[in-house]
Amino acid sequence: MKALVYDGQLRLVTDYPQPKPPPGEALVRVRVAGICNTDLEVVRGYMGFHGVLGHEFVGVVEACDDVPELVGRRVVGDINAACGDCPTCRAGRHTHCPQRTTLGIDRRDGAFAEFLTLPAVNLFPVPDQISDRVAVFTEPLAAACEITEQVHLRPTERVIVLGDGKLGLLVAQVLALTGCDLLVVGRHAEKLALLQRLGIPTVLSSQVGDVQADVVVDCTGHPDGFLAARAMVRPRGTLVLKSTFHGINQVDLTSLVVDEVQLVGSRCGPFPPALRLLARDLIDVESLIDAVYPLDEGVTAFEHASTKGTLKILLEVT
Amino acid sequence: MKALVYDGQLRLVTDYPQPKPPPGEALVRVRVAGICNTDLEVVRGYMGFHGVLGHEFVGVVEACDDVPELVGRRVVGDINAACGDCPTCRAGRHTHCPQRTTLGIDRRDGAFAEFLTLPAVNLFPVPDQISDRVAVFTEPLAAACEITEQVHLRPTERVIVLGDGKLGLLVAQVLALTGCDLLVVGRHAEKLALLQRLGIPTVLSSQVGDVQADVVVDCTGHPDGFLAARAMVRPRGTLVLKSTFHGINQVDLTSLVVDEVQLVGSRCGPFPPALRLLARDLIDVESLIDAVYPLDEGVTAFEHASTKGTLKILLEVT
Repeated sequence: MKALVYDGQLRLVTDYPQPKPPPGEALVRVRVAGICNTDLEVVRGYMGFHGVLGHEFVGVVEACDDVPELVGRRVVGDINAACGDCPTCRAGRHTHCPQRTTLGIDRRDGAFAEFLTLPAVNLFPVPDQISDRVAVFTEPLAAACEITEQVHLRPTERVIVLGDGKLGLLVAQVLALTGCDLLVVGRHAEKLALLQRLGIPTVLSSQVGDVQADVVVDCTGHPDGFLAARAMVRPRGTLVLKSTFHGINQVDLTSLVVDEVQLVGSRCGPFPPALRLLARDLIDVESLIDAVYPLDEGVTAFEHASTKGTLKILLEVT
Repeated sequence: MKALVYDGQLRLVTDYPQPKPPPGEALVRVRVAGICNTDLEVVRGYMGFHGVLGHEFVGVVEACDDVPELVGRRVVGDINAACGDCPTCRAGRHTHCPQRTTLGIDRRDGAFAEFLTLPAVNLFPVPDQISDRVAVFTEPLAAACEITEQVHLRPTERVIVLGDGKLGLLVAQVLALTGCDLLVVGRHAEKLALLQRLGIPTVLSSQVGDVQADVVVDCTGHPDGFLAARAMVRPRGTLVLKSTFHGINQVDLTSLVVDEVQLVGSRCGPFPPALRLLARDLIDVESLIDAVYPLDEGVTAFEHASTKGTLKILLEVT
């Protein structure tokens, strides 16, 4: 099958072996996949991953011995393949299973290919009213929902989202639904304009001045986002970290103690709420699509996605 | 001025004295007011209130010595007039000030009149894009936002709203924005249909069967709502009480202990989030309006509002 593979170099392989689903797993024919900043980071060395890239997808189940009623269903999938049996899994924290593999990121071939496999329990049928190009945003939208899953974000609170990239724009839309007093700080007037059209207040980081908030979410995706975000958290406030990158930060831990600031690392999130929000058309994801390429042009698509200021690049796979 | 007064009997008075704002307060010319279940309860004896009824309103500030920039602004108002100075107020809990008076409910004439007074700090300017007939829903919508202010409602949680009256329909819409797995249980197919059109799942109480949820919100407004709601709360779940009525319930407290159920009483809420949700057109309130009467026909409007199955009745005041 065709697959976009990274093995120290990114290239399209046309004769990659089609995966065979082990027991408990389903074979999924990928329809549309999305390029995420994490994919770009993987190509820069994050996780040391070699194999088929990609973890944002919508596809159709081709085979699933354990849950035959899934066959033929259009699905999205949780990217963390857990053992299901360890104490972490049994406590309901499967995304933190120490044995987990992760689609296109850690010891599991990903979604930029004609086929992928995932455990059947990871798959969620997509309601008909959600198109493929919208459904492919379920995974990053779930990551945005993880914030409200972890943090009690009160509607009276002042909240700042730092970063107007793909994730920042999704996070901002999810948090705005709480009715909170939200400000999105970004570097790109044209991206902030997407939110302004939805009635969400924004400001350019060059014009933000001194602001403080109860909750600050760092969605910059850059190591230097931390310092900027930290400076905006009020004493006893909460700083949510959504950025993952290849590198180590220097952090003034004592200031966190003195100001009693809470740091919350936040990664993958729950798919059902994301699907519910998309089904009710409460999140504008189509404005985030900058281009759609066929899988054959995957390398070009990656170059486009790596260009500064680019929002979502989709791959039409089959 | 004209006013709809309850003094053991509900009647329209045409020569009621126009209120004079004391220091710190504003004089507001009422434009539109809404009849709430609490108004109906007051007429049945709740709070033992005598005076001008009504607490849901939108109006224009006619005079305000302390905050002159409010004059001419269209405003809605927090109904709890607090002292601002006691330990409760200084701790940020002004809606629980022991000295508070409450608009149209407790020792303060209300909104079913040409003029009312409220402390300037209680008033919130209404964004232009919100019409009068929408803005008048700010107060009950704020009460719905109070739930997410008090309870960390996770987007993965199963939530049941019991009751499809005015408040239930607003609460359901606010909670659905979290992406939670929501089910609204009500007795009126035509009211539930309003939510179904928005993509919010509903079921008739006669068909609900055995259901359990992480969080259950009793919006029935009736004493017997408690037992039904209690039966739906899972062990270690949360039961939010939104109903206020004239009467005392019998409650099996031991079962709350055994099941470690948390009861959360929930009343008035924050106005700014409610205004933000209305400004972004995220809550459909216009479908909840059953009729609009001039203040002159206030007694008839009350009769209409008291008719079983009626949703919101508005009074056009000036």
